[in-house]
Amino acid sequence: MVKYKTKSKTDKDIHQVFGVNGVLATLGGNNNYHLQTIEILEKSHVLSNTNIQELLKNYQSLIHYLNHDKFYKKYSDKRTQGIVVSFSGVITKTLPSFKDVDGNFGLLIVDNVTDPQNFGQIIRTAECAGIGGIIIPEHNSVGITDVVLQVSQGAFCNIPIYSVTNLSQTLSQLKDDDFWSIAVENGIDAKPWDKIDYRGKIVIVIGSEGQGIKPLVLKSCDFQATIPMQGETTSLNVSAATAVVLFDRLRQIKI
Amino acid sequence: MVKYKTKSKTDKDIHQVFGVNGVLATLGGNNNYHLQTIEILEKSHVLSNTNIQELLKNYQSLIHYLNHDKFYKKYSDKRTQGIVVSFSGVITKTLPSFKDVDGNFGLLIVDNVTDPQNFGQIIRTAECAGIGGIIIPEHNSVGITDVVLQVSQGAFCNIPIYSVTNLSQTLSQLKDDDFWSIAVENGIDAKPWDKIDYRGKIVIVIGSEGQGIKPLVLKSCDFQATIPMQGETTSLNVSAATAVVLFDRLRQIKI
Repeated sequence: MVKYKTKSKTDKDIHQVFGVNGVLATLGGNNNYHLQTIEILEKSHVLSNTNIQELLKNYQSLIHYLNHDKFYKKYSDKRTQGIVVSFSGVITKTLPSFKDVDGNFGLLIVDNVTDPQNFGQIIRTAECAGIGGIIIPEHNSVGITDVVLQVSQGAFCNIPIYSVTNLSQTLSQLKDDDFWSIAVENGIDAKPWDKIDYRGKIVIVIGSEGQGIKPLVLKSCDFQATIPMQGETTSLNVSAATAVVLFDRLRQIKI
Repeated sequence: MVKYKTKSKTDKDIHQVFGVNGVLATLGGNNNYHLQTIEILEKSHVLSNTNIQELLKNYQSLIHYLNHDKFYKKYSDKRTQGIVVSFSGVITKTLPSFKDVDGNFGLLIVDNVTDPQNFGQIIRTAECAGIGGIIIPEHNSVGITDVVLQVSQGAFCNIPIYSVTNLSQTLSQLKDDDFWSIAVENGIDAKPWDKIDYRGKIVIVIGSEGQGIKPLVLKSCDFQATIPMQGETTSLNVSAATAVVLFDRLRQIKI
């Protein structure tokens, strides 16, 4: 359950999630967010959702019912499905040691993806693919905005997102913890994505839409995986490429 | 090269593409679009792109240079990279017979996807994965809007998009032409996506974000492929699921 306490609306870490999936994940998740308000459109269909009903019982004092005009004045440009939850708290965590983890365990480094739609999709896809955590650089990356949370469809509550100061150092630390690292990059040393061995402890690194992975980070990786293009388009969208690689890993570790 | 003739701006089939990739594909593609205008931001970086320079030579009379204020008054909310092409023409084609095609040949049916971002991504991914054509229902699907074209990054010029009146009849016709059909759907008869044989002539069917594939269409399919979720999120985004399936097909046919 989400802890709640009253905080100022000016709190810099205030986030909003919209829609059933995001709200269910936020209210139902095991996290340390501080719930501020639950705004619901009067007579909304969302009130007939039994999972939502059940969760709302715990938060009666924070619920605000808004009439049609008031609700859409605030949220006309969002896909709310009639419900909006505001909370504060830091979404990212500090990277722990994975020395004692064994078996098939995969991490994903997202190096400088700039589009919040793509970042949100990547979080959702990684959670669906059984990835153990997402690592992002503290600087130079898209922030975890409300669009990111929305597009992730609540997945941000169910997969840890680790913020680190230096990706090359993080890769070196993971190597010490027995990880192999794989960059998804179209380099000359790259092998087709499905010819890489994703079993065991691995970290997959994806780069930004325009620039790819930063040279120093790329240099720290053990392998490069490429997805050969079959048509005229020069590349897959970064979130589609992530889906292709993460589910080939899943295919391999389920054999 | 794109044919051009003057048409009224009220033409219902006027489309716009924004940005380098979309413009290169539209101007360079082998299609029957009728070019209207090419609007370029004065002193834009796009003018130093040699591929763009080369193509523009053919269309000098249609180029309009707009100063900063005028350009951004029209296109402030788009990712134009300083160039916008307007053209008219019908993007969809009539489905031909594939009776004489053999070898590995894949089609993709998109049944009622409603989000233009997803539809655009699916077009891009399908073209990157070597799919031979996309089939959409004439009614009930998202239109081929400018957002769809934009997100496809020009891929709509390089993969045929076929519009049909009845998907069940189309599936029946494809069966007569020796296709196997595979629905991407989480049904009880579904096999894991990577345990399906995608070799030969196949048509893959994907459904809408909320409702999935229509029952009658689903019933017409020979096989069902499911992508098992590993976390709490109930499903992948439809464009991510498409990427997973289409690139597993590519993996199989490249062996």
